[in-house]
Amino acid sequence: MHGMVRMRVSSFLRVGSKTLDLMEELFSPPSLRSYLSEFISSFIFVFVGVGSAISAGKLMTSSDAQSRETDLLAVGVAHAFAFTVAVYVAPGSHVNPAVTFAFVIVRKLSILTGIRHLITQLLGSTLACLLLMLVTAGQAIPTHGLDDRVTVFGGILIEGVATFTLVYTVFASRDPQRRSSDGIIGAIVTGFIAGVNILAVGPFTGGSMNPARSFGPSIITNDFKNHWVYWLGPLIGGGLAGLLYDKIISSNHKQSSSEP
Amino acid sequence: MHGMVRMRVSSFLRVGSKTLDLMEELFSPPSLRSYLSEFISSFIFVFVGVGSAISAGKLMTSSDAQSRETDLLAVGVAHAFAFTVAVYVAPGSHVNPAVTFAFVIVRKLSILTGIRHLITQLLGSTLACLLLMLVTAGQAIPTHGLDDRVTVFGGILIEGVATFTLVYTVFASRDPQRRSSDGIIGAIVTGFIAGVNILAVGPFTGGSMNPARSFGPSIITNDFKNHWVYWLGPLIGGGLAGLLYDKIISSNHKQSSSEP
Amino acid sequence: MHGMVRMRVSSFLRVGSKTLDLMEELFSPPSLRSYLSEFISSFIFVFVGVGSAISAGKLMTSSDAQSRETDLLAVGVAHAFAFTVAVYVAPGSHVNPAVTFAFVIVRKLSILTGIRHLITQLLGSTLACLLLMLVTAGQAIPTHGLDDRVTVFGGILIEGVATFTLVYTVFASRDPQRRSSDGIIGAIVTGFIAGVNILAVGPFTGGSMNPARSFGPSIITNDFKNHWVYWLGPLIGGGLAGLLYDKIISSNHKQSSSEP
Amino acid sequence: MHGMVRMRVSSFLRVGSKTLDLMEELFSPPSLRSYLSEFISSFIFVFVGVGSAISAGKLMTSSDAQSRETDLLAVGVAHAFAFTVAVYVAPGSHVNPAVTFAFVIVRKLSILTGIRHLITQLLGSTLACLLLMLVTAGQAIPTHGLDDRVTVFGGILIEGVATFTLVYTVFASRDPQRRSSDGIIGAIVTGFIAGVNILAVGPFTGGSMNPARSFGPSIITNDFKNHWVYWLGPLIGGGLAGLLYDKIISSNHKQSSSEP
Repeated sequence: MHGMVRMRVSSFLRVGSKTLDLMEELFSPPSLRSYLSEFISSFIFVFVGVGSAISAGKLMTSSDAQSRETDLLAVGVAHAFAFTVAVYVAPGSHVNPAVTFAFVIVRKLSILTGIRHLITQLLGSTLACLLLMLVTAGQAIPTHGLDDRVTVFGGILIEGVATFTLVYTVFASRDPQRRSSDGIIGAIVTGFIAGVNILAVGPFTGGSMNPARSFGPSIITNDFKNHWVYWLGPLIGGGLAGLLYDKIISSNHKQSSSEP
Repeated sequence: MHGMVRMRVSSFLRVGSKTLDLMEELFSPPSLRSYLSEFISSFIFVFVGVGSAISAGKLMTSSDAQSRETDLLAVGVAHAFAFTVAVYVAPGSHVNPAVTFAFVIVRKLSILTGIRHLITQLLGSTLACLLLMLVTAGQAIPTHGLDDRVTVFGGILIEGVATFTLVYTVFASRDPQRRSSDGIIGAIVTGFIAGVNILAVGPFTGGSMNPARSFGPSIITNDFKNHWVYWLGPLIGGGLAGLLYDKIISSNHKQSSSEP
Repeated sequence: MHGMVRMRVSSFLRVGSKTLDLMEELFSPPSLRSYLSEFISSFIFVFVGVGSAISAGKLMTSSDAQSRETDLLAVGVAHAFAFTVAVYVAPGSHVNPAVTFAFVIVRKLSILTGIRHLITQLLGSTLACLLLMLVTAGQAIPTHGLDDRVTVFGGILIEGVATFTLVYTVFASRDPQRRSSDGIIGAIVTGFIAGVNILAVGPFTGGSMNPARSFGPSIITNDFKNHWVYWLGPLIGGGLAGLLYDKIISSNHKQSSSEP
Repeated sequence: MHGMVRMRVSSFLRVGSKTLDLMEELFSPPSLRSYLSEFISSFIFVFVGVGSAISAGKLMTSSDAQSRETDLLAVGVAHAFAFTVAVYVAPGSHVNPAVTFAFVIVRKLSILTGIRHLITQLLGSTLACLLLMLVTAGQAIPTHGLDDRVTVFGGILIEGVATFTLVYTVFASRDPQRRSSDGIIGAIVTGFIAGVNILAVGPFTGGSMNPARSFGPSIITNDFKNHWVYWLGPLIGGGLAGLLYDKIISSNHKQSSSEP
């Protein structure tokens, strides 16, 4: 899509300069609109996602087992709903640097556009956390962290596998080979995989699968302990899922080169 | 749609009088049917929404933390289901004055029709609460209120942001630019954003996002403490979401002027 | 549909006898297949619905408030999933005598066919409860009953209003005026309204909305206390919803007379 | 589909040898890709499904009733989401030997292809459990087992009936007679029936309905107590559902012989 837009704009403005093309790609009205969509999707996802974690924590006065179980379910369901909404309101949005990275890896997105997506995701997440800190009157913003018994390697592995399943599902939902009607429920199914991974691995790593989701709370609270785990795991897992789906599972990967 | 209906009816009855046109718009059979649809959707939403809050409260004999957490999840899921149903049974219904206000702000709805929607929403909500009071044998009807640590400004901000995400999702689901099949799951996704916002901000403001949802319990119990927060926040947030989506995100807002 | 089938079969077999026509309607292969579909849908719905209530009760060793709240949520979600499945696996199935009654009231179903549906629903429910009693090794089968503070009149009113919302949603999901694609999510939305009503009124009447759902547990346990409430309320509420939707909301009720 | 692929490949390679045909069916690129899809779907399903059971167990420090109830709900919802995702990401995948068996029984799948599906399902499940054991730092992998009061015969019956409802739903969702758009939500509805059966029978047998889901945890922990119950029940129940749907409910079972 971005390619088409660039071509159309270029037919009016092209002066033979690579630099100008680049400026157009980055600052044309359609590009700015697309940044804004991605920014809002990321904002919505992190606002309600982190908000659900704050709310669960606020109600929990004791640290008893039962409270934590109910929290897990509430937070899992919240993220399922949140990711569905974030994907649905901006068709083609990524909301997640691991998804963006996977599309760059399989060359369906330019590195430049990928970085653009990344920046808007981080900004959306940071603003959402700022706002939450402001309105919740000093409630602690919960950051992602590793359970005591989980090693850093284990954390990377868990986040990597969880993100693998997430990105694999995102790629399946946008496979041009599917009957177009099959893609309709894609937003819901990608929400389901986001939610169920929290139910599955939440007590071990939090079940981030999304560096932007982890980044906002960390920058606001200045707590970056093991933060890099939430970049390395998701990027490796997401990249592998993208490669696997695009190169092996999807049989028409040679013909189709349209941007996602 | 209302415009089309008015034109068709007018071709038979027009006598050159603005007043008669107005009477037709307000009291023609299609208009009355449309009031009734909106009334029933609002009734269903508030009946099961407030009902779920009553039921959660009824079972809770103590005010311990765990009970409130389970309540939050049950009430969040209930409102997700309820809003999905209310939107689905009457395609084009608003159920929520903040949604109506946003459509008026972007000039997709006349002020008069907007007021009509508002009145039916408030009536539906009030009747639902009356009935609940009657059948639940004196259970208290829970009203929306602010947590002790949340200021009035904070409450307006929370309700404003939550409603922003809700109305933005409603506008996305009715964007004529989407492939028509994409809109099918719109009712479910709008339900998800309604439910997840309760999981995210419920402990702080209740997560109303809907002045009509807050109005019914308040008028029945005559408890209007901070009630205006649940009007101001949603109307501001909803209005901004409508403007943002219609003027910036949706690129064809000039051509398309059909009523939602 | 039944009318079409009868016509086709009749073109081969008609011998001018009303009795034979009736035999055909009742015992032709398509009719028998349709009984079986309805029977299996009803069986599935009651097996997992009552099963979820048994399972919730089995885990609950004490009668503390928190347990009952979690139960309510689990049973509500279970019935949402169950009704979705039951409606989906047999398109056009009713699963619920209140739905059947509403279609008979608006003359979209003959009384005879209605009775046929009713019998298969009651048989499906009874067999499901028998099987549950057998396999769960003597766990009590929970029957629907009124909360201490709910009067018989209140119970009828609650079940009536809840069933009104359910049947209204079923009629909306099968409205031939909707774009055909809109009906796809009908099964899910009808599941949502079934589930949310349990969250809303479960602690007061159990939230049956379905005489067949209530009948199976009652006949197996021979506990018919207030059982008639679960017939009268749903039939009145469902009938009114059918009439309202068919005669007023759906504007083309005159032209369309195809069976649902 | 496999038949078509075999035919096309054969037109190039056929040398009159049955053995070579067999080699092609088993090791052609499309076949290998189809193994991989099924393997990944099975892996995703078991990873998040068993993961959710581990996570629920990890948070539970006491064995009190309330904890087990919340667990049941979390695990039920997790399996609903997980099965939806597993079915959606690989259209036509089975994920479950009972589904595969049912398709073999009704002759829509060759025995050889069925065995191939079975092996990939067992491998996917085993790898998922191995990985979970590795990353969760020694958390016990929960296996399926019978409640004290449930006999072996009762267990087979429960798993049989639950699997019957699951496979019946899978067959309905892939019925070529349905309007194609109806099948879109099939993945979600099959997820719902998987989840609700856990809510219904989880406390009695665990609600496996899937020999591969039970196999992974058993082989990793070397705990095969009553393991055969989780093969016999699902295969009988699934086979009967397939036969019933294919031979009786689906009226066009003679004409249509395309592979599912």
